[in-house]
Amino acid sequence: MGKVTLVGAGPGDPELLTRKAWRLLGQANVVLHDALMDTDAMKTAAPQAHWIDVGKRLGHVSVEQEFICRLLVSYAKKGLNIVRLKGGDPSIFGRMTEEIEACREAGIDIEVVPGVTSACAAAAQLQSSLTLRNISRSVAFVTPRTGKRPVSSDSEWLAVSLAAQTVVIYMAGAQSKQIAQQLIEGGKSALLPVCVVENVSLNGACIHTTLQALARTALPIFKGPVLLMVGETFTNANHTAAEREAHKSKTQFSELATG
Amino acid sequence: MGKVTLVGAGPGDPELLTRKAWRLLGQANVVLHDALMDTDAMKTAAPQAHWIDVGKRLGHVSVEQEFICRLLVSYAKKGLNIVRLKGGDPSIFGRMTEEIEACREAGIDIEVVPGVTSACAAAAQLQSSLTLRNISRSVAFVTPRTGKRPVSSDSEWLAVSLAAQTVVIYMAGAQSKQIAQQLIEGGKSALLPVCVVENVSLNGACIHTTLQALARTALPIFKGPVLLMVGETFTNANHTAAEREAHKSKTQFSELATG
Repeated sequence: MGKVTLVGAGPGDPELLTRKAWRLLGQANVVLHDALMDTDAMKTAAPQAHWIDVGKRLGHVSVEQEFICRLLVSYAKKGLNIVRLKGGDPSIFGRMTEEIEACREAGIDIEVVPGVTSACAAAAQLQSSLTLRNISRSVAFVTPRTGKRPVSSDSEWLAVSLAAQTVVIYMAGAQSKQIAQQLIEGGKSALLPVCVVENVSLNGACIHTTLQALARTALPIFKGPVLLMVGETFTNANHTAAEREAHKSKTQFSELATG
Repeated sequence: MGKVTLVGAGPGDPELLTRKAWRLLGQANVVLHDALMDTDAMKTAAPQAHWIDVGKRLGHVSVEQEFICRLLVSYAKKGLNIVRLKGGDPSIFGRMTEEIEACREAGIDIEVVPGVTSACAAAAQLQSSLTLRNISRSVAFVTPRTGKRPVSSDSEWLAVSLAAQTVVIYMAGAQSKQIAQQLIEGGKSALLPVCVVENVSLNGACIHTTLQALARTALPIFKGPVLLMVGETFTNANHTAAEREAHKSKTQFSELATG
């Protein structure tokens, strides 16, 4: 029997893989990887391995989770050493449990290697803490996306977002306007700073705005994954560095920025 | 003028540093590092640098934050390249903003490199997701510790913990009994699984228990930092691997385990 190692690849920049991830890639026979990764650079760590893209892409035909689980099991049964390379950290919105359970049921050895989650990498890019003394002693990572249910039918994410001083909303680009409206209706200050960060660590767009402005205007359609970061702690986020890294022109967002 | 790079060192295991952290260590003249790190191994990345321990230790005389800020500025003004190596990820309970502001005021270039936060590394060790389809679409990182104010005087952390399906409570080892009581009083199910993880990634103790059991019995005093991980998602946490890694004897915790 082979072995399956679930490895967090971090937010995208190949230098943000851990040293352990890099070492284990070098020992892999097969790498099953998510989409949205700079695999060209990562492949230098495992040129010997067979690389398979099993990424789920927003708005595109996706590889079913069940199919990924079957692939993991069938390769491991062939005695192969498999690295399952997942975006960010596998324990946060990573569907790690489904893959672990499939392997456990088949009696396959598993190891998990944590990675840098996108929220932390975005905070680094913004040079802004997620927690801050006397301002925020809590940070919540939430997602309103459920696949089938729309935002409004489930308020679980909303209750947490309202209670936490700092909120990072994953996979929220397309629903930002509605999310901002719900946060304001729920009692968040309309003037709270919001950073919208696309393609964290890979020079995506970065918009500095407020809940109020976000609630009024839909964001442009982003190609990459988007984080909405909401909280007083982002008041001092580094605009200069962030704007320097933005792909999009500032004028495109002028309405947003001025609210 | 030199430069200051705030670098997340991850939870402790030197292999969980990112490749970027390792590379930047190799370019440092001075490394100011937190306590509770396996610096012997990390020093192999920067044998050329002057390593200074500025760690704050629970219950011991600590180096004041202001002193650390002054050190960063004074070394940078000497033209030195400084790596400020912080435990976990610098944006989560890392006092990063204080250090960034000191550098910004002095006109010093800053860069931040994210790291693996302890909660993600603990989830990897437990082979348990922090979020889970149909179970948890939110995870909150909170701390009840404020330095001066006791737990009961501030319920900010509590509101977030009650709203989030998965909660990771940082720096909570000494207050676990009171925390569990407050969570149950606030409405969390007394039967919710709790994992208590000490010295994440460095073979610390790991206890599997429930809120109810935790509320009845004080935990032993831990030497290393402790995470309390609370939520239904930990039902399937990997007991075997966790117990294998535990330092402490199982009998020591028998009262806890049986509730």
